[in-house]
Amino acid sequence: MNKLLIVGTVAFDAIETPFGKTDKILGGAATYIGLSASFFNLKSAIVSVVGDDFPQEYLDLLTQRNIDISGIEVVKGGKTFFWSGRYHNDLNSRDTLATELNVLADFQPKVPQEFKDAEVVMLGNLHPLVQSSVLDQMQAKPKLIVLDTMNFWMNCALPELLEVIKRVDVITINDEEARQLSGEYSLVKAAAKIHTMGPKYVVIKKGEHGALLFQDKEIFFAPALPLEEVFDPTGAGDTFAGGFAGYITQSENISFDNMKNAIIYGSNLASFCVEKFGAERMISLERDEFVGRLKQFRALTQFEIELQH
Amino acid sequence: MNKLLIVGTVAFDAIETPFGKTDKILGGAATYIGLSASFFNLKSAIVSVVGDDFPQEYLDLLTQRNIDISGIEVVKGGKTFFWSGRYHNDLNSRDTLATELNVLADFQPKVPQEFKDAEVVMLGNLHPLVQSSVLDQMQAKPKLIVLDTMNFWMNCALPELLEVIKRVDVITINDEEARQLSGEYSLVKAAAKIHTMGPKYVVIKKGEHGALLFQDKEIFFAPALPLEEVFDPTGAGDTFAGGFAGYITQSENISFDNMKNAIIYGSNLASFCVEKFGAERMISLERDEFVGRLKQFRALTQFEIELQH
Repeated sequence: MNKLLIVGTVAFDAIETPFGKTDKILGGAATYIGLSASFFNLKSAIVSVVGDDFPQEYLDLLTQRNIDISGIEVVKGGKTFFWSGRYHNDLNSRDTLATELNVLADFQPKVPQEFKDAEVVMLGNLHPLVQSSVLDQMQAKPKLIVLDTMNFWMNCALPELLEVIKRVDVITINDEEARQLSGEYSLVKAAAKIHTMGPKYVVIKKGEHGALLFQDKEIFFAPALPLEEVFDPTGAGDTFAGGFAGYITQSENISFDNMKNAIIYGSNLASFCVEKFGAERMISLERDEFVGRLKQFRALTQFEIELQH
Repeated sequence: MNKLLIVGTVAFDAIETPFGKTDKILGGAATYIGLSASFFNLKSAIVSVVGDDFPQEYLDLLTQRNIDISGIEVVKGGKTFFWSGRYHNDLNSRDTLATELNVLADFQPKVPQEFKDAEVVMLGNLHPLVQSSVLDQMQAKPKLIVLDTMNFWMNCALPELLEVIKRVDVITINDEEARQLSGEYSLVKAAAKIHTMGPKYVVIKKGEHGALLFQDKEIFFAPALPLEEVFDPTGAGDTFAGGFAGYITQSENISFDNMKNAIIYGSNLASFCVEKFGAERMISLERDEFVGRLKQFRALTQFEIELQH
């Protein structure tokens, strides 16, 4: 089995949507990435940090998914990273109500020895210096390095972000962030500019409008599955990235054609994530449901046109 | 050859985009629909009205595309419908600067005798009473009736609009209009509600985010082709509808699977329309370019996933 190394937050979230609100629940980019990747045949580990206020049952939940948590540092007397947000009625935008870095402020990531030769590294959204530090600890260049980030780091740590972007093969980023990073409005032009910053593959996430994969002049598009209800978008982007990285790790094939499949798998998993609050749906998700929905993706997008007419 | 009957405006447009502005140029829903449908093997006619200020060269342009213009009434001393609009920087929204109905105000459509048995009728965006009147003049129920409309008619002629919607097989409508018509935010729920109003097929146009085709529980999605530049979105929705109706007319197959192809053809043609001002690109478009871009649509969306993994 190939190895997937994940770095990112393991955290508490408190979420308000038009449909309800939660107390502190399990959240964090690495949590979503790890749960999503656990649907594939691979060995995974999370590198992160929590306080000793973090419930053992949450850690057990990750272990039950065969995720190695030896790289999750538990800081005695520390408090776990906490994020709170409120979504607007259209669920496309949100206000951040609270961000308490807590133990994340001084986080020094430590990659477990067993994962220093991981085939795939998924750098979840986190300070770019932490992302770089994880890459520094790898014994050899991984087959594929995927980076997810957000506008926050473009605003407050751009030089460090550009440094780590140089070192990765794939960047996943949302449409507005791609525009901010590149200074280009057209996503085709934005992707071309981001290519020149380092990543051979650029994935632009458009939420309910799907995702685009760029490699030079080649483009692939996967729609989001049209759903009757989107309950809570929290973690959908991380779940997408986890599905993408998990599928690549399992298949050990980094061709553009295989990345198309990875994008479909990521979109599929993200379509479940949004059905309930937080990671609830990802925890209850069964393999059958997940495979069944792949058929829906096929029906949604595949057509037969004779190119002579 | 099958016949396609088109009703809609033939008009003057004056357009401002971030890239420039035009004087009065050829516009109108029926113009775009007719030009788009002319790429298929069919006989088409436009039912519309213009003033005697409308240049003969514009009418000749339609005739050169084998469009029967005997149903375009020229009102002596009348002025042609004129619309003027200014697009915002993102090209996703626009302000209407002028709408002069002129000869359109008293328009009584007259379907040419030869097209009263048309296999397909495309009711372009226009007053719903005009759309109904065209259906009243048909000798028999056409194989397929497609209706395009907009929020304007929902606001000021809803009862008449609902009457004509009852009579059609396919409605094409944009996402915001689908939400307004149905009172549902989720497009899946909106389509389900619009089904109950009459149309067996619901097409929801999402502009740069593609288009969805619904038939009961079945859904198909076609992306818009990602472009380096969108120059002017005017007429893209009509061009899409014209490609859809044109392909159905040519193939004479109203199965859901064939409608998927029709959606792809419509998206393909619309992707050309936005490359230049107004109808300019549709006038210069060659068959080769159009077929070449079908290959891009295939590459953009087709994938191969083994459903066992």
